[in-house]
Amino acid sequence: MSRWPLPEPMQRALKLAHQAALAGEVPIAAVLTQQGRIVAEAHNSPRLSHDPTAHAEINVIRAAASQLRQERLEDCDLWVTLEPCAMCAGAIAHARIARLYYAASDPKGGAVEHGARVFDQKQCLHVPEIYAGLGEEEAAGLLRSFFAQRR
Amino acid sequence: MSRWPLPEPMQRALKLAHQAALAGEVPIAAVLTQQGRIVAEAHNSPRLSHDPTAHAEINVIRAAASQLRQERLEDCDLWVTLEPCAMCAGAIAHARIARLYYAASDPKGGAVEHGARVFDQKQCLHVPEIYAGLGEEEAAGLLRSFFAQRR
Repeated sequence: MSRWPLPEPMQRALKLAHQAALAGEVPIAAVLTQQGRIVAEAHNSPRLSHDPTAHAEINVIRAAASQLRQERLEDCDLWVTLEPCAMCAGAIAHARIARLYYAASDPKGGAVEHGARVFDQKQCLHVPEIYAGLGEEEAAGLLRSFFAQRR
Repeated sequence: MSRWPLPEPMQRALKLAHQAALAGEVPIAAVLTQQGRIVAEAHNSPRLSHDPTAHAEINVIRAAASQLRQERLEDCDLWVTLEPCAMCAGAIAHARIARLYYAASDPKGGAVEHGARVFDQKQCLHVPEIYAGLGEEEAAGLLRSFFAQRR
């Protein structure tokens, strides 16, 4: 039996999440691709950057939009290791991201399949295609060991 | 009869929202105060800054957190001319803003009293004190004339 390999952008996001932990940040990371090519990548960095909005998704959306010099990322896909929170789901809608891929789901803070369910609201102006569960074991494992070490 | 004057931070936010319109951005602005003193102010700027996350609230939270060199703004209040969207309500919770004052409510995009109702979710880690309706006529008027001119 061979295991279906994780798509490369999610593999990259998991590596970056590991780096986040080494830097003392909660291990969550995101990669943004345009037609299969990585345009931007970032991990969670609220502590390092003194910025409560510096979640991986916000960081990567800002970096890509700045680099592409466009407010909307209509032909881009976002790969993130954890279910986005309300802030990040809102940003994904504003950015018009085409496809959202995430690894682990997050009952405590996620707002895609939990809580605010941002994309399920009638007022939501843009809903990406959503694919969950790619690499969820690895992503959740990183978070578990990070928090276990801090206890 | 004398009219109760708007608190100074909201007056300032309304002025900034007017400036946003002159710059071609949707007229929404925010001011962040710490113990009554203005720490940061910003208008909506997604077009000018090529950043879909550049709503007034995100801009002002990032500026204040950077200036104060702290991830959390626990002793700060946020004054904004429109009901925050899901992205911004999430950011306000992450930043641990003490009090949220907003002018007009926004049935189309607001996520405080509409849609995702971010602060009403059990998972929401921080809920600010919320005061709505200060200067709502002025704030809504700015938006109405901005969109009327663009039609």
